[in-house]
Amino acid sequence: MAPLVPRSGDAVFANVERVNAELFTLTYGAIVRQLITDLEEVDEVNKQLDQMGYNIGIRLIDEFLAKSNVSRCVDFKETAEVIAKVGFKMFLGVTASVTNWDADGTSCSLVLEDNPLVDFVELPDTCQGLYYCNILSGVIRGALEMVSMKTEVTWVRDMLRGDDAYELRVKLLKQIPEEYPYKDDE
Amino acid sequence: MAPLVPRSGDAVFANVERVNAELFTLTYGAIVRQLITDLEEVDEVNKQLDQMGYNIGIRLIDEFLAKSNVSRCVDFKETAEVIAKVGFKMFLGVTASVTNWDADGTSCSLVLEDNPLVDFVELPDTCQGLYYCNILSGVIRGALEMVSMKTEVTWVRDMLRGDDAYELRVKLLKQIPEEYPYKDDE
Repeated sequence: MAPLVPRSGDAVFANVERVNAELFTLTYGAIVRQLITDLEEVDEVNKQLDQMGYNIGIRLIDEFLAKSNVSRCVDFKETAEVIAKVGFKMFLGVTASVTNWDADGTSCSLVLEDNPLVDFVELPDTCQGLYYCNILSGVIRGALEMVSMKTEVTWVRDMLRGDDAYELRVKLLKQIPEEYPYKDDE
Repeated sequence: MAPLVPRSGDAVFANVERVNAELFTLTYGAIVRQLITDLEEVDEVNKQLDQMGYNIGIRLIDEFLAKSNVSRCVDFKETAEVIAKVGFKMFLGVTASVTNWDADGTSCSLVLEDNPLVDFVELPDTCQGLYYCNILSGVIRGALEMVSMKTEVTWVRDMLRGDDAYELRVKLLKQIPEEYPYKDDE
């Protein structure tokens, strides 16, 4: 059997099953709207979106590993590049750039210029504290936790808040011992 | 300018922006789980999913008309075929078959054998009354209302409830006068 070669984000994205991006965008918008109605507090909505993303991330990592043929990254720098160039492409069809590394290579920014989650979205004044795309930070945190990396993921820039790009800060808190990703009762 | 020719579902789907189907499936699952937690009553969850779908449908129809080049259908029979062969394909990447027409051609079934919303889904015993895919019935109802057709859309078969396919019954209640789909304040 030929050894598995890691695939480019484009190659992976071309070969996965896909649905219409506008349907996804509108469906995501419906979730956010629903959470705002049910929870009322914007901070609670942010938390809930992050938690939903986390739950998605811990499962999505399996598809990522299965389809991308990416093997263990040598360090966090390589991990960040793989998320930006293969992960984002594979799931959302866009890529991110990795910038603003700190001196010890444990903290960087993922900058998105194109973001399918926010098409047609404008935040009303009552939602100014909302991190509309907070599901993304949760997905990254959840997915990385399944490959032994405990991280903190926060928004630095958000175009819905008037910034010029979407910038997520990813900070590696610690490498955790690898665990089998499912509990026995699942 | 050459006249616009209606496109096949495959042709339209190949040309729209898309995201990963598994991400969509997991995101949809996260919505349903959230609604179950917040609303507790399965009937309320069904209603809310339908309403969310309706809100999506009234917007998705614009993308459908813009991208598919479909013009006004001559009758409800043609409408049903277009939903099944172009609409489902364009948004979910699958097609449905149209069956079980009643005598006066105002009621039919859309049968889906492949349904990307339900991958990896199993309903726990506590959710037996749930129509997990109820967002779909809302989308169809909302989209049709924007093209002057008031309909009732209900589930007849559901594989998550042990049936052998997904069957949606679509009943035309009345043709309504066409209205501009947006309110002035939007």
